[in-house]
Amino acid sequence: MEERDVELITALVIKAMEGSKEKESYAVPIGVSARHVHLTGEHVEILFGKGYELTRKKELMGGQFASNEQVTIVGYKLRAMENVRILGPVRKKSQVEISATDAIKLGIKAPVRDSGDIENSAPITIVGPKGAIYLKEGCIIAKRHIHMAPSDARAAGVKNGEVVSVKAENVRGTTFNHVTIRVDESYTLEMHIDTDEANAAGIITGDTALIYKS
Amino acid sequence: MEERDVELITALVIKAMEGSKEKESYAVPIGVSARHVHLTGEHVEILFGKGYELTRKKELMGGQFASNEQVTIVGYKLRAMENVRILGPVRKKSQVEISATDAIKLGIKAPVRDSGDIENSAPITIVGPKGAIYLKEGCIIAKRHIHMAPSDARAAGVKNGEVVSVKAENVRGTTFNHVTIRVDESYTLEMHIDTDEANAAGIITGDTALIYKS
Repeated sequence: MEERDVELITALVIKAMEGSKEKESYAVPIGVSARHVHLTGEHVEILFGKGYELTRKKELMGGQFASNEQVTIVGYKLRAMENVRILGPVRKKSQVEISATDAIKLGIKAPVRDSGDIENSAPITIVGPKGAIYLKEGCIIAKRHIHMAPSDARAAGVKNGEVVSVKAENVRGTTFNHVTIRVDESYTLEMHIDTDEANAAGIITGDTALIYKS
Repeated sequence: MEERDVELITALVIKAMEGSKEKESYAVPIGVSARHVHLTGEHVEILFGKGYELTRKKELMGGQFASNEQVTIVGYKLRAMENVRILGPVRKKSQVEISATDAIKLGIKAPVRDSGDIENSAPITIVGPKGAIYLKEGCIIAKRHIHMAPSDARAAGVKNGEVVSVKAENVRGTTFNHVTIRVDESYTLEMHIDTDEANAAGIITGDTALIYKS
């Protein structure tokens, strides 16, 4: 083998190895979700009275809003958590999203699930000023995920349903693995984590992390 | 270039690239620390009475023990947390270790610090059955770390003070970066995280994670 071949090959090997180490990243702002409740229209009426409709306190992403209305949730050990915010608009199924710390405090075994996936999740009681409902299933710990519009997905080089890792850099320094990408025209670019994840990783709403393809 | 050269080089490149991807890992059991207090002998006497000594409830690593004694801690917004366990034996400085979630609940700004590094940390009041003490500084959020004996360090290929990443594999899937290795003859192999980190990452005491060199 001639010397110039060796040089050429060495350069190619170095380039190939650098390529294997280099990972593309894409910045995503983080939104921290506190415990909250989604309700059906029927359940809103049971909890707040006939004909009652949720009132808007603050606009959220994708047409959602934080309502002025709050409830108390009670687990099957009868421990209660007060002032839990309701998110609107109403949905087809009622659902309670809590953190793992909340689940321990309430003494319930809530599974980590995608929003809407409540089959065989934990039972919970929701109490309002005009009534109460008992959900045989519906209490979950929300699985973290990233919302983005199709244009963001193209820019980040990811697809709907793809699983990525997200690295937050600060004194604690945490990489969230198994994070699912959800793409929809109505979505604004944001990663949703719960209060446990935020507190453990030293993150507050508005902080930025980097998406890496897993 | 001859064909056998090309084959040889291809094989070498593949091997080199695999090597660059392959990271050595080492398993470490995890211990979850709930909020707790360390006290000086003098402070034990102020809180529990003249001549009082902490009594052992449960042996912990490195000669430490969970005592039967508990205190109430109060932050400067006067919010209180009851039944906070004292860890023995007594130390040269009193210190309160809480989670970020606790800090929010208490309304105090506690920094993330190594144990013992309490300069300019948050003030906190500790209340016992016979008295109270006000610490001008001493309340921290403990920085996660790994304890190991010199033999473990040799086996894992790490040194005292080295910073590593630790990956926990489960439904949530979290990598803790910036984790400091602490080597001492008295240490048993264990990574210490707080309740926020445990709850956010779906970890309970006794679970195992993998150390990767950063």
